[in-house]
Amino acid sequence: MISISQFIDSKRLWDAHMSYAEFGKTPKGGVNRQALSKQEVDARRALINEAKTLGALVFTDPVGNFFVSLSGTHPELAPVLTGSHIDSQPTGGKFDGIYGILAGLEVLKAIRQSEQRPKRSIEVVSWMNEEGSRFAPGMMGSAAFAQERPLNEIVNVVDEKNISVQSELEFMASQFPEITQRPLGFDVHCFIEAHIEQGPVLEEMGISVGVVTGIQGKKTYRITVEGEAAHAGTTPNLKRRDALVSATRMIQDLVKAFEDPQDKTRFTVGRLVVEPNAPSVIPSKVIFSIDLRHENSNLLVELGQQVQQICLDNEKICKVSVVELSSALSLEFPKSIQNVITEKCNLLEIKNMSLLSCAGHDSRYLHGVCETGMIFVPCKNGISHHESEFSSELDLYLGAKVLADVLWDRANQS
Amino acid sequence: MISISQFIDSKRLWDAHMSYAEFGKTPKGGVNRQALSKQEVDARRALINEAKTLGALVFTDPVGNFFVSLSGTHPELAPVLTGSHIDSQPTGGKFDGIYGILAGLEVLKAIRQSEQRPKRSIEVVSWMNEEGSRFAPGMMGSAAFAQERPLNEIVNVVDEKNISVQSELEFMASQFPEITQRPLGFDVHCFIEAHIEQGPVLEEMGISVGVVTGIQGKKTYRITVEGEAAHAGTTPNLKRRDALVSATRMIQDLVKAFEDPQDKTRFTVGRLVVEPNAPSVIPSKVIFSIDLRHENSNLLVELGQQVQQICLDNEKICKVSVVELSSALSLEFPKSIQNVITEKCNLLEIKNMSLLSCAGHDSRYLHGVCETGMIFVPCKNGISHHESEFSSELDLYLGAKVLADVLWDRANQS
Repeated sequence: MISISQFIDSKRLWDAHMSYAEFGKTPKGGVNRQALSKQEVDARRALINEAKTLGALVFTDPVGNFFVSLSGTHPELAPVLTGSHIDSQPTGGKFDGIYGILAGLEVLKAIRQSEQRPKRSIEVVSWMNEEGSRFAPGMMGSAAFAQERPLNEIVNVVDEKNISVQSELEFMASQFPEITQRPLGFDVHCFIEAHIEQGPVLEEMGISVGVVTGIQGKKTYRITVEGEAAHAGTTPNLKRRDALVSATRMIQDLVKAFEDPQDKTRFTVGRLVVEPNAPSVIPSKVIFSIDLRHENSNLLVELGQQVQQICLDNEKICKVSVVELSSALSLEFPKSIQNVITEKCNLLEIKNMSLLSCAGHDSRYLHGVCETGMIFVPCKNGISHHESEFSSELDLYLGAKVLADVLWDRANQS
Repeated sequence: MISISQFIDSKRLWDAHMSYAEFGKTPKGGVNRQALSKQEVDARRALINEAKTLGALVFTDPVGNFFVSLSGTHPELAPVLTGSHIDSQPTGGKFDGIYGILAGLEVLKAIRQSEQRPKRSIEVVSWMNEEGSRFAPGMMGSAAFAQERPLNEIVNVVDEKNISVQSELEFMASQFPEITQRPLGFDVHCFIEAHIEQGPVLEEMGISVGVVTGIQGKKTYRITVEGEAAHAGTTPNLKRRDALVSATRMIQDLVKAFEDPQDKTRFTVGRLVVEPNAPSVIPSKVIFSIDLRHENSNLLVELGQQVQQICLDNEKICKVSVVELSSALSLEFPKSIQNVITEKCNLLEIKNMSLLSCAGHDSRYLHGVCETGMIFVPCKNGISHHESEFSSELDLYLGAKVLADVLWDRANQS
C-alpha cells in the first residue's frame, strides 16, 4: 500500500492558502475574516464547493461548526476529526487556523487520488469563532461541541454593533439551505489539529514539525475601574477620581510584579476602553482585559491570585472590580497521539521535536472529548495574529504529509 | 438715577433658565444642545422672539454668531458686548453658557423697565460652538470674530456624521430669513461674560460673585506609541513591542512628574485608544491625549517641555511621537475691568473675590479684541459638563445684578 502522504501536493496546498487568503484580504497582505462575518461565509462557500467536487458530505451543527466528511468503509464507527478554524483576528494572517482546514482538505484530496478508502470516516472541521475577537470569548464552537459552555449562553453573545451570534448563525443558515444540520456533539474517535506554531522555537531550531505535548494554561480577567467624570481644567487634583490614572498604575504594578527572568510568565493587557474618552474630561471609567499564561499550573494559580491582589490594592479613590472570565490549567495530550505523530515524522524522515503550545486552541476542548493531539509547523519570527504572518510552502507541505499518515493510521484503527 | 441692578428680577431670570433648559432636555435633567443642532436653533428662535418683544435688533454674522442689540443714544459708538454661548456638551447642564446669555437678556429687560437709555448700544451675543463637542475644536465663533482662525477652515469642519459647519449654518440661515447679517468682526467697546465657575472655590468660600482675573493657560498634545501586534500567549517577553505597556508607563511617569503640592498643575489624559484592542493580541498602537494647564505661563511652558522629554525618554522598544495640538498661555484680564466689577459688587454689598478661570472661555479670544472681563457665580460641588450641574436662583440673581451695573457703567463711557 502506498502511504497517503505520497499524494500530498505541495503546490496545491500553497495555492489553496493564497486562494482562501482572498476572503477578508487586507491591503497589508493579511486577512480580516472574523467569526460569522460575510468574509467567513464566503470562505465556507468555497469549502462547500470543494467538498462537492471531492464527493464529500457537508454538515453543520447548532453552533455553526462546519464538517466536511469523507466516508469510510465503516461509517458506523466514530469518525477521525481534523481541522481548526477559518476565522481570524481583525489584522490576522494567511495561515493561523486556515492551515488546519486546508491541510485536512489536502489529506482528503490525497486520499481520493490514492483511490484508497479508510475504515473510519475522516472529517475536516471548522470550529466556529476560535479567535474571539468579534464575539468574546473565543473557542465557542469547540466549547459548545464539548458541552463545556451552554449553547443558549453562546448564541446571545453580541458584537460591538450589538449583532448577536444567533442572528449571524441564522444569516449563515439562510446562505446554505442545503446543508444538513447534525445535533451538537457526537462520538469522535480522535482529533488531530495542524496549526502554525505562533512562536519562534521550531524556526530557531531549524525543525519542520512540532509534536505538541500540551497547551499552556491561561487565565483571563476583566478589570473595571470606576471614578467620576469632571472638567480637566477646573477640577483640583485632590478632588479627582480619575479612572485612567488608577488603571495605568495598576497595569504598571502588574507588569513589574510579573517580570520573570525565565520568561515563562506571559502577561498581556490587549484591550482597554475609556469612558467618556474626551480629551478635556477626566475619565469616569476604564475597562481592561488581562490575559495571563504560564506552563506550570500551580504557578498560574498563584499569579492569578496576584492579579486580584494588585488590582484591589489599587482601589483607593476609584472603585475596582476584578472578574475572572476564564481559567484553563495547563494540559498534556495523550502520549499515544504524541507517539504516533513522532513515529510518522521519523518514517518520513522529517525533523521533529516535542514542544508545548503557548497559545490556546480548539484542541483544548476536544481533549475533554476524545484522544487529541496537535502538529505544529514553523512560522517566520514566531509572528502570528499579524498581517505579516508567514509559513513556508515546504513547512506547510511537510506538516500536511505527517497529518496525512497520522489520520490514515487512526482512521484504520478498529 | 436708579441703578439698573434694581430692576433685575430674580424669578424672571430663574424661570428663563428653566424655560431654555427645555431645548435639548435630557431624561436625567441636563441638556444636550450641541452647536448648530436643531435644539440650538430652537433656542435661538425663542431668543429672537424675546428680542422682538424688547424692541431689540437681531443680527448674525458669517460664522453664525448671534447678537441681540439694544440701541443706545449714540449707536455710532462701539457697542458694549455681553453674552456667552447656547451650545452644551452632549451630557451638559442647565447653566453652562446659557447663564451668560440669559443674564445679559435680563439686563436688557431691566434697562427697558428702568425707562433709561445708555449712551452706547448693549448687545447680548451668543458665540457659535464654544464647547467643541460636536465640531472640534470649540470657541469657533469667537475665534473667527477675533480673526484668530480663518472662516474657511471653520466652515469645513465636519461632525461624526460628516455634516459640515457650512451646511448647518445654511440650514440655520434658512430658518431665520429675516435676520440681518453683519460682516465678521466690528469695533467693540468691551466684552463682559457672566458664567458659572465650573470649579468649587466660590461655593467653598461662601461667596456669590467671582471677579475673574484671567484664564489659565493650556497646552494639548497627541501622543502616538507604535509597537507591534503579536500573540499574547506565544510571544516571549524579550520579543514584545507592547504599545500599551509603554503608554501606561509614560502616563505614570507623567503623573509622578506633575505631582504638585500646591495643586496648580492640571494634567489629564482624557482620551486613549488602543489598536487592535483585542484581549489576546499585544497592542500595536496606542494614541492618547494630554490636557495640561497651569496658571503660570512660564511654568506651563516648562511643564510642556517635560511632556516631550518624558514621552521621548520612554521611546525604547516602541516608537513615540509627540504632537503639540494647541498652546494657549495664561492671560490676565485688564485691571480696569476687574476693578469696575469689584467696585459694583461692593456698592451692591455682594461678597466677592478675585479668582482665576481654570476653564477656557470665548473671553480668551475677545481679550485680543477689546477690554474683556468675566463674572463668575458658584456652581454646586464645582460640577459642570454634567447633567447634575446646578447654580442657585440667588447666585444667578446676584451675578446678574453686578453684570447690569457693570454694563451700564461701560455703556455710558464716552
